Amino acid sequence: MYRPFQLEDAKAYVRQSSLFAPDEPLEAQDLADGNVNYVYRVYNPARPDDRSVIVKQALPYARIVGESFPMPLDRARIESRALEVEKTYCPDLVPRVYRYDPEMALTLMEDLRPRIIMRAGLIHQVRYPRFAQDLGRFMARTLFFTSDLSLDSDAKKRQVVEFTNPGLCKVTEDLVFTHPLVDHPGNRWNPLIEGDVRRLQKDELLRAEVADLKMAFMTRAEALLHADLHTGSIMISEQDTKVIDPEFAFVGPMSFDIGTLLGNLALAWIAQEFHADDPERRRSYRQWIEGAMREVWETFSREFTALWEERAHPEWPRRPYRDTFLARLLQESAGMGGAELIRRVVGLAHVMDLESIPDGERRAVAERMAISAGRTWIMERRGVHSVDDLVALVRTARDTVLAA
Amino acid sequence: MYRPFQLEDAKAYVRQSSLFAPDEPLEAQDLADGNVNYVYRVYNPARPDDRSVIVKQALPYARIVGESFPMPLDRARIESRALEVEKTYCPDLVPRVYRYDPEMALTLMEDLRPRIIMRAGLIHQVRYPRFAQDLGRFMARTLFFTSDLSLDSDAKKRQVVEFTNPGLCKVTEDLVFTHPLVDHPGNRWNPLIEGDVRRLQKDELLRAEVADLKMAFMTRAEALLHADLHTGSIMISEQDTKVIDPEFAFVGPMSFDIGTLLGNLALAWIAQEFHADDPERRRSYRQWIEGAMREVWETFSREFTALWEERAHPEWPRRPYRDTFLARLLQESAGMGGAELIRRVVGLAHVMDLESIPDGERRAVAERMAISAGRTWIMERRGVHSVDDLVALVRTARDTVLAA
Repeated sequence: MYRPFQLEDAKAYVRQSSLFAPDEPLEAQDLADGNVNYVYRVYNPARPDDRSVIVKQALPYARIVGESFPMPLDRARIESRALEVEKTYCPDLVPRVYRYDPEMALTLMEDLRPRIIMRAGLIHQVRYPRFAQDLGRFMARTLFFTSDLSLDSDAKKRQVVEFTNPGLCKVTEDLVFTHPLVDHPGNRWNPLIEGDVRRLQKDELLRAEVADLKMAFMTRAEALLHADLHTGSIMISEQDTKVIDPEFAFVGPMSFDIGTLLGNLALAWIAQEFHADDPERRRSYRQWIEGAMREVWETFSREFTALWEERAHPEWPRRPYRDTFLARLLQESAGMGGAELIRRVVGLAHVMDLESIPDGERRAVAERMAISAGRTWIMERRGVHSVDDLVALVRTARDTVLAA
Repeated sequence: MYRPFQLEDAKAYVRQSSLFAPDEPLEAQDLADGNVNYVYRVYNPARPDDRSVIVKQALPYARIVGESFPMPLDRARIESRALEVEKTYCPDLVPRVYRYDPEMALTLMEDLRPRIIMRAGLIHQVRYPRFAQDLGRFMARTLFFTSDLSLDSDAKKRQVVEFTNPGLCKVTEDLVFTHPLVDHPGNRWNPLIEGDVRRLQKDELLRAEVADLKMAFMTRAEALLHADLHTGSIMISEQDTKVIDPEFAFVGPMSFDIGTLLGNLALAWIAQEFHADDPERRRSYRQWIEGAMREVWETFSREFTALWEERAHPEWPRRPYRDTFLARLLQESAGMGGAELIRRVVGLAHVMDLESIPDGERRAVAERMAISAGRTWIMERRGVHSVDDLVALVRTARDTVLAA
């Protein structure tokens, strides 16, 4: 019988899991860093670095909002199964799962400490030499092997059924695509950009394009997505990278994962402008982020191409279809990334990259840049032919806002 | 326990169905006109016109091919459920279902006699004054109301699961999109067009576009399709129209239904050229078919637009997105129709429109026209802006082949 765990429940649960020796001392700690779940660490205080486990439990609502925001417990099943699939293709890039308990909607998994959430690392200008290749490879392999290019027709359709995730898809449909461009009580924004937001919400051409992207999100069952692939879903160090929290996973358009990741890198880039350190350091870190954006796409594109060449069902032609497919994928990713850029400024869920800019006026400038970059990523996506075009649109958005 | 029915089984089954009075005399007849199922008529010989019922039973393989071509019995469930959904939106356009028996994979349904299969009527140059409006309305209503424009997000996703139809989707994936353009033993064609077929199968640009259409068929869960909407799935008279046999139903791209129907009308148009009657009559009937193609699309487009205006979830913008949506839908329908035109000449399943042309040389000319029209519908679809453009491409294909 499901019941939400308190700290002591988590400890008792781990105690009887046989992950620890019967006489091992255990401590528990409430990490309280999930927006929607309970997350506890249970560890041996004598050896916290190697004798430690994470207890993650879904609640029937979003923890950060409360019972007014219901979220199905089934997301624990989705997450544990998505981690299994991802592990098949990228064993080094996901946390180990020790146990999934459907009754308690609970997963025991690897403690990824001392890695930190990448978004925090970006804010502190840490360079992660493996990040771009790891994420490019993660997306190439998970998206390729779960698509019709690789799976048998029947297995693909069973995968769609298994990962049917209506509750969490609806959250994305609402928060990313619908609410930000209409008058919705969940939206919030810096009062200093009120005029910009109202202009955005009256832009009928933009609303048409975002509707088109939303329709793609809702109808295009291309591959098993992580579906929440922002820099807050990555635990990272300079040595390695782990992609966590795939509870939004469903079979959707590949562009959504790619666009979400690139959009969040663009947010990190924009936020750098307003860091309180010397301009040279900011400029240099922005260059590192630009390089990461390029390398994410280029690694993805190179690995995806190689997999298609070597592993796709023979019934799928190689060139020229593959080139068209990838060119369109980049364009659609730009659109998805643009929707992410906008919703992180005007929707319900903001990001620390921008929120951590203490001065409201300066933050407003950054937010205008994000809106402007998001808008052009969406509206000009059909003219995007390389990831450099995306970087250039972000730079233009910055220059335009600074000149205004 | 499932068992295939013989004539006497069908009669006995109907006898205990309470559809007939206990003392009513019953006769049974094997209609043997399904490619894949058993179809029996059971009727009161004293009143065959109003006391008659159809017994349709799925076999675990395609009847016309044999056990080497397995087809899941689950298609009987899909068909009966699809008929229910279609009845909700177009009660006058589908047969009544009296009973669905999951154990026997069997449906008792309305006998649609004296209506005939529309393909036969077209071959005999019958004009059906209600056809185009009926089918335009059928597609507009079934596709709109089962799409994300109308259904709640959650209900739509449940519909995808309910209509997961891997066995029959695979048949279409293979027979329409894959086999015709590769060397496959199931393909067959008139030996007189050998050269044309080999050229077609070497056309890498065409293969890329057909792969793109196949990917759309496999991934785009837009609406509940009939998914086999050719003129052999329509029982018709001058008074009314019934759409039958939705056993291929699944949630797929709207363009597939529209394109299949328009493609089959184009096949009927092409076949008229070779009718053994006076040219004026043929010309006049071709004009009727052209008018029907226009009216199918225009009725569809008008009704779909009105539904969108009045009934779409308010979160979906109206214009300009709706206009873009419909413009792209026509272009993609051209592609799907083009694939249908080609596969009916070079694939496994041919059509009587062309097969009934007795002279092989004359049939070869018609077949070349169909291939040429199909190829241009696919390759030039992004330049299609009205249904007249589609008609014009068929006329051009005819003129080109005749001039060669």
